[in-house]
Amino acid sequence: MAKNLRVIPLGGLGEIGKNMTVYEYGRSMIVVDCGVMFPDSDMYGIDLVLPDFSYILRNQDRLKGILLTHGHMDHIAALPYLLREIETTIYGTPLTLGLVKRQLKEANVLHRARLEVLKANETLPLGPFQIKPFSVAHSIPDSVGFVIDTPVGTLVHTGDYKLDETPAGGRTTDLKTLRKLTQRGVLAMLGDSTNADRPGRTPTEQVVGETLDRLFAQARGERIIIATFSSLLARVQEIMTLAKKHGRFVAMAGRSLTENVQLARELGYLDIPPNLLVENPEQKPKEKMLILATGSQGEPRSALNRMADGQHPTIKVGPGDTIIVSGGTIPGNEEDVGRMLNRLFERGANVIYGAMATVHVSGHGSQDELRTMIETVRPKYLIPVHGESRHLHVHARLAQATGMDSDHVFILRNGLPWVTDGQRAWTDKPLATDDVFVDGRLIGEIGEIVLRDRHRLSQDGFVVALIPINKRRELVGEPQIISQGFVYPKGAEALMDATKAEIKRQYKQGAKNLERALEDFFYHKTQSRPVVVPRYIQV
Amino acid sequence: MAKNLRVIPLGGLGEIGKNMTVYEYGRSMIVVDCGVMFPDSDMYGIDLVLPDFSYILRNQDRLKGILLTHGHMDHIAALPYLLREIETTIYGTPLTLGLVKRQLKEANVLHRARLEVLKANETLPLGPFQIKPFSVAHSIPDSVGFVIDTPVGTLVHTGDYKLDETPAGGRTTDLKTLRKLTQRGVLAMLGDSTNADRPGRTPTEQVVGETLDRLFAQARGERIIIATFSSLLARVQEIMTLAKKHGRFVAMAGRSLTENVQLARELGYLDIPPNLLVENPEQKPKEKMLILATGSQGEPRSALNRMADGQHPTIKVGPGDTIIVSGGTIPGNEEDVGRMLNRLFERGANVIYGAMATVHVSGHGSQDELRTMIETVRPKYLIPVHGESRHLHVHARLAQATGMDSDHVFILRNGLPWVTDGQRAWTDKPLATDDVFVDGRLIGEIGEIVLRDRHRLSQDGFVVALIPINKRRELVGEPQIISQGFVYPKGAEALMDATKAEIKRQYKQGAKNLERALEDFFYHKTQSRPVVVPRYIQV
Repeated sequence: MAKNLRVIPLGGLGEIGKNMTVYEYGRSMIVVDCGVMFPDSDMYGIDLVLPDFSYILRNQDRLKGILLTHGHMDHIAALPYLLREIETTIYGTPLTLGLVKRQLKEANVLHRARLEVLKANETLPLGPFQIKPFSVAHSIPDSVGFVIDTPVGTLVHTGDYKLDETPAGGRTTDLKTLRKLTQRGVLAMLGDSTNADRPGRTPTEQVVGETLDRLFAQARGERIIIATFSSLLARVQEIMTLAKKHGRFVAMAGRSLTENVQLARELGYLDIPPNLLVENPEQKPKEKMLILATGSQGEPRSALNRMADGQHPTIKVGPGDTIIVSGGTIPGNEEDVGRMLNRLFERGANVIYGAMATVHVSGHGSQDELRTMIETVRPKYLIPVHGESRHLHVHARLAQATGMDSDHVFILRNGLPWVTDGQRAWTDKPLATDDVFVDGRLIGEIGEIVLRDRHRLSQDGFVVALIPINKRRELVGEPQIISQGFVYPKGAEALMDATKAEIKRQYKQGAKNLERALEDFFYHKTQSRPVVVPRYIQV
Repeated sequence: MAKNLRVIPLGGLGEIGKNMTVYEYGRSMIVVDCGVMFPDSDMYGIDLVLPDFSYILRNQDRLKGILLTHGHMDHIAALPYLLREIETTIYGTPLTLGLVKRQLKEANVLHRARLEVLKANETLPLGPFQIKPFSVAHSIPDSVGFVIDTPVGTLVHTGDYKLDETPAGGRTTDLKTLRKLTQRGVLAMLGDSTNADRPGRTPTEQVVGETLDRLFAQARGERIIIATFSSLLARVQEIMTLAKKHGRFVAMAGRSLTENVQLARELGYLDIPPNLLVENPEQKPKEKMLILATGSQGEPRSALNRMADGQHPTIKVGPGDTIIVSGGTIPGNEEDVGRMLNRLFERGANVIYGAMATVHVSGHGSQDELRTMIETVRPKYLIPVHGESRHLHVHARLAQATGMDSDHVFILRNGLPWVTDGQRAWTDKPLATDDVFVDGRLIGEIGEIVLRDRHRLSQDGFVVALIPINKRRELVGEPQIISQGFVYPKGAEALMDATKAEIKRQYKQGAKNLERALEDFFYHKTQSRPVVVPRYIQV
């Protein structure tokens, strides 16, 4: 019996984040990417979300290695957690591996990984898989997609891409090589769906360059502070080049940015003119300075947010500062970014942000680009990946509009195996894949129940009622109330007294379910539903 | 000594929502608008935010009446709360008063208000104020701004507006009348700043009409479900007209929508062709139906969200449905809307939303429109209103670009009085104006302390430690732990045992601050900071 190829998404389907895909044939398995997801706002108190690694742990004897498409957090940052559990080889381009190495070092797991550089135009054999990387344009240099030859056919894993013809750094998506590598036909493509709902093409990074050039010219005589993602290294290159052009020195604010720039520079991915960088912005006159800072998402501890709050140790902003926020706002961060912008304006700075000018463009292709990719690769099957349901579905519709049969487009979900014998394709019994929550030191210990409790506590707080009883279970003395987040105790004495009276009344009536009775009591009094915990205290 | 005019914003400055402005001269006071704000995501458990009415309550003998610009919630929905405290006269256009009347009736305070219709081209005298309404184009019909003549000069209160030349319903902002009413010069203008950060002009509502026309044509043979704000009555008119054109019957889903449509129709603001509306969508074949629903914000109990969850009592969505979400996403609602869209796609419907086509435009003017307004009115002073800080500041910059002196643009905040004698202008000592939170039945009783507690509970839950002591304050027996939202008890037995041991250890060492000691203990163990409440129990 011929063996089948199985493709199992462990993350990135039905969500933006924690991208991770298993390719399996016989007793061999490779994994593409291993990223984290940042929590939704209803994931109370959660720091990070990881993919569920159980399938890999159960089958680690099959694992031939992990391939990385690029160095963004949603593609690499779960590696330190996976490497606590297993040892393996990680393959990536030099910049990607540089970023991974730093993360593994910080987590003390670097010794558990072999890092192998992927070389352009070389084929990497891993068991039954032949892996051929091709360059893609994305918002971080050194991004690749993979053509994967398998015994049942060729697969294309696009990774994150756009078809930017004038990207920063000059590396476009290499459709020519892709076409060459796929000329014998492609069985299936796993394609980036992030911007599948946007018509047309994603604007080229060059538009941002032109806007920044104009804004820098307008800021003559003022200090420039510009915030972006520390991983948006293509943008960083652009800013450095423009700083030079406008006769500015550059200082950096924010640890991740400083580290990334240093790394990318060492590896030759950033071309920074000599004497451009200065350690201390005070060394040079304000109007000669450009400060490159973290904080485009309004993250509380980022450099720009601390400037906005007047909490930055060295940089004070005010009139005479032009501040440019050059990063798209990730959904869920709108309020944080808005608050930061408000405070910067209140300090008198001249602030320019996304609504006002094209100071950011996405690193993911829009509908015309996805269509071009489908038409270039002409896969027999398409599996839209990297998106919430709506993005996957719209990507599927686009594919059908190019003439693909709807039976040949598979909308998967995390844990749902896609299986093919090279002729036909189908889905198999789903694996259980839960979100794995990181909360401080706790990894995977916080589940949905705790999150539900936190949600309820966030809305109405809690009331613990201590009820003193004697050995004969008779009420003796006054109940005590411990409460937070429900009502402010000063001013709520009457409610608390009524609560104690109600407890006594219920107890004497022999209430079967005191918790429920108190919940109803509070709802009747306040229309709120605090968490209620009655506890008998034997005295 | 000449008397001064005082303008005091009680809400709407530094925020989008709860618009309310006091105009005061001598012992006479009028109020423009009285709206609510929907809570930010960090206002845990809060239903609504009201302006602080204290200044009005303290000076209610001066109040000559409340003027309303239009019928949106952020301009009228705090009236039921204010009318619990005072009686007054409310002035508005017929549709606005119709919406107010319904709200006051529901809150049982209708008898405390006299409702007086504002008439076009008539001057309303209120004490020393002469009020002249002028029409503005906004996303609800019957919207007006006010020219207010006072003993020290003329003021213009724009209300919410755009300069749409082809609006739905056909009523544009009446710049001609405004120019006539202001020809003797304007002392100050209070101008809408909502879209001050958007370059150019806000697209005309006609663009939405054209998009919907095209989408309706493409949906031939399918049922159409279209969601919008129930207050977006201009859009509702457009949809009704297009439904007729495309040979569809219309059914409504959602109480607020049904009520608003009925009211607007009765008052002559909606022109609905006869026999267009049907009660029960099942009466007609699917491909002849259009269902107009609430839920463009993904609100949990809205009609469209219930359809997405499969919880709607009568309407089941699936393949064969074209669903159009025709309302902008209010900041903070992105995740709710995204989830709803995902579920609708997962049911197999063909869904079209904002990212994909121009199915919504804003009701507020952009930079070119604000500039035109300033140039039309030519006020001596400008007070940007209706916006967060960043919008007010960008509006101020726009005014300066038209040639206004920066000393003549005042950026106020809630409670900061702006005073003028007609010649000069200055700000006075600020009034205390706090957000007033509505949480269930509790109005103004929940403050910042409770919200801080709720925030902390939402992140890490709570731990109540009951410590049994005897009369000599000696520890007797085992401490008990009550905890929720921290860790899941099953699987955390070891942590709980360690906690009890730590309590005993700390107690025996005579720890001065057990709460703090336990906080440190939990942080060390988990890097989380639950709310800790130690409580001694005398047994």
